[in-house]
Amino acid sequence: MPSRRLFLNVGVNSTGYHGNSWLAPDAAWDRFLSFDHYVEVARLAREGGFDAVFLSDHPALQRADTSRPLHSLDPIVLFTALAARVPDIGFVVTASSSYNSPYNLARRLSSMDHISGGRVIWNVVSSFNPDIAANFGSAPLPGREERYRRAEEFVSVVKQLWRSWDHDAVDTPAALGDPLWSGDSARPIDHHGEFFDVRGPLNVPLGPQGHPLIAQAGASDAGIDLAGRHADLVYAALLGKHAAREFGAQLRERAAAHDRDPETVRVLPGLVPIVADSTEEALRRHERLNGHADELSLVRAFADRHGLPFDPDGIVVPELFHSEENQQGPIGFTRSLHDLVSAEPLTLRQLARRVDGGHRLVLGTPAEVAEQILDWWRDDVVDGFTIQPPTLPHDLRTFVEQVVPLLRAEGAVTTDYPESTVRARFGLPDPVASAPTR
Amino acid sequence: MPSRRLFLNVGVNSTGYHGNSWLAPDAAWDRFLSFDHYVEVARLAREGGFDAVFLSDHPALQRADTSRPLHSLDPIVLFTALAARVPDIGFVVTASSSYNSPYNLARRLSSMDHISGGRVIWNVVSSFNPDIAANFGSAPLPGREERYRRAEEFVSVVKQLWRSWDHDAVDTPAALGDPLWSGDSARPIDHHGEFFDVRGPLNVPLGPQGHPLIAQAGASDAGIDLAGRHADLVYAALLGKHAAREFGAQLRERAAAHDRDPETVRVLPGLVPIVADSTEEALRRHERLNGHADELSLVRAFADRHGLPFDPDGIVVPELFHSEENQQGPIGFTRSLHDLVSAEPLTLRQLARRVDGGHRLVLGTPAEVAEQILDWWRDDVVDGFTIQPPTLPHDLRTFVEQVVPLLRAEGAVTTDYPESTVRARFGLPDPVASAPTR
Repeated sequence: MPSRRLFLNVGVNSTGYHGNSWLAPDAAWDRFLSFDHYVEVARLAREGGFDAVFLSDHPALQRADTSRPLHSLDPIVLFTALAARVPDIGFVVTASSSYNSPYNLARRLSSMDHISGGRVIWNVVSSFNPDIAANFGSAPLPGREERYRRAEEFVSVVKQLWRSWDHDAVDTPAALGDPLWSGDSARPIDHHGEFFDVRGPLNVPLGPQGHPLIAQAGASDAGIDLAGRHADLVYAALLGKHAAREFGAQLRERAAAHDRDPETVRVLPGLVPIVADSTEEALRRHERLNGHADELSLVRAFADRHGLPFDPDGIVVPELFHSEENQQGPIGFTRSLHDLVSAEPLTLRQLARRVDGGHRLVLGTPAEVAEQILDWWRDDVVDGFTIQPPTLPHDLRTFVEQVVPLLRAEGAVTTDYPESTVRARFGLPDPVASAPTR
Repeated sequence: MPSRRLFLNVGVNSTGYHGNSWLAPDAAWDRFLSFDHYVEVARLAREGGFDAVFLSDHPALQRADTSRPLHSLDPIVLFTALAARVPDIGFVVTASSSYNSPYNLARRLSSMDHISGGRVIWNVVSSFNPDIAANFGSAPLPGREERYRRAEEFVSVVKQLWRSWDHDAVDTPAALGDPLWSGDSARPIDHHGEFFDVRGPLNVPLGPQGHPLIAQAGASDAGIDLAGRHADLVYAALLGKHAAREFGAQLRERAAAHDRDPETVRVLPGLVPIVADSTEEALRRHERLNGHADELSLVRAFADRHGLPFDPDGIVVPELFHSEENQQGPIGFTRSLHDLVSAEPLTLRQLARRVDGGHRLVLGTPAEVAEQILDWWRDDVVDGFTIQPPTLPHDLRTFVEQVVPLLRAEGAVTTDYPESTVRARFGLPDPVASAPTR
């Protein structure tokens, strides 16, 4: 039995992870705008001992005709409000390094960190969609290479701003009546780079956990390099154990290359659970969720979506999936399918049950789902998972009530919160004492 | 007895309005960073029936050696957290039109408006300090004229984004399973202006009050024009009744020139109350707050600060105060002193008791303070006041416990909240039905 914990985050966007989740008959379709809905979801997550709730983001209206409303309320605002209502749990806040300014974002995240008592994790995204660019000026979306160069400088500036304060600046006001912060307890950063000029210091002192953690999800080379340099948590689409092990090794190597302790990077790939009383029922629920009456219909739609020939019992060859480092959209989803069928011979029928919405699908009874989670963790292939319940709150409640107790019984998770910050919970060191200042 | 209400907002920055408020012996000096402190203050304000709490802002570290720490936690974040904890009361959120992007700000304020149930008021500022500019790029702070041109375009874009939705877009999802928002319930705005290119639509539908109210404080010609065009609430430094009456008339005239109903603009100038059991005690508290042992010392410091000759019992002539439309800093404070001594002959000794920190000072017993508030309101010179308690929470508690009951007894205020949004509370019309779309 390993002494390390299994970390669990949970995605809480909108009506659930699945595109059809807004059609769930047991909840109001317009709950994507309801604060009470998110409070219920976050409380459920806390009851289940999750380490953090997670919101992805997209600052533009998404109108896929057949999909749920997605990415409406701003993550900084929604998670700040939740932090004021739900204790203990962490908050993974997605915010773009392409369409924010470093000073405002550093300040807002640090303010959240103070108010929440040290529970903020910033998920850095560079934004890949031209619809977003059109809301922020006349310039077209920059290419990936430029966006990641900007992201790297952005994160570096934000960290410098956070660290422009000493730990004890607020603890020791000298004598009352003395000048405030007249020494160098808060220092300008005088940053002048390719994209940003920022003088500083920040106007918010260090918080309860020093400063927020950093999360990252990009799977391109540039994304992995950014994660290796800066990320405490990494979210990824990893569909098989082999690929997960390789990804973790690559990430740790990159962290070491940037003079970081490779054991301080936590990998929590996405995982979509479909839990039912029997395996058969879980298969049927998977089909219904996707709007299909039977397995063959599901498999055919899967083939169509990925441009694969419809041969349910033929083995899918890796060559059918190819991604290019210079493509516009995210490359992680395509690469993960390629890696999965490279490592395991899978028929189309089998493959359609291993992935949903781009992430690892696990379906079955509570025991079957728990076992698939524990398997990767016992073998030290990942540090945990980012659970993506297909519909909210329904599938999160099922997971908390039926799967979490099995994970607890194995000593993998705890539903207590003995640590006072999310940094301590993830076992990560003081950022100001330990890390290089850029 | 007029049937209209007296509106009251209250400033809740940091440790209080007064520069020395962090030295108050009855509260921890570092409460400027404490969420619990702000919760206590907002709850007190709600108990007192205030219409809204107000945070000014300055996105740069302010290190005046002898002043309180000011403008640390971000207003959007702090007020979102408070909205999740304190019901009913409104939130005046200051955010800069020079150092935000319209899409992000429109979305964040709209998200707050949804989560708070329609309690958000955006206070538009153009930011006048070079320290701020240095945190947001290498360009120097633009001149006032350019900043206000940008502010006007910024507010116009934000309003277009808010109004890119129909009222009933979320009420009627057609039949479940039909395409979502496929008609023109959300429309691109396709804005292309001098400063901004924004396609839209916003990804947040209209909220409980349509969209947030708009507040404005600039006293320059450009500021008043911006207020006339867009502001629902106006904050100003108005030291005398004569100037207040003139200011209101000027503002309504400007609103009418922009095709607005002039009766829908509410003027709530700043007011600093110092309440004590006797007039003498209030005078002594005013001196102590400013770090002086007696009146002459206070008067001398006042003269020094404003560059006036020290002649305690000589009349101060208006020519001693002059402001220029093209000066860098805010011109409202200087102009308000000029207007006060033009309308009333005041000795230096008297003048030093009429203003503190730039705003109207009223000091005395609870009855004296209430009478000075009611006097302007009865004469219809203003719609209400933005109370600026010198120290928090102390002076707010005193005001709520001792002054508010007197205002209630006159029928000027209520401590109930019968209206469900801050727009309804201020008696303002549906913005989508009534207003031009730019």
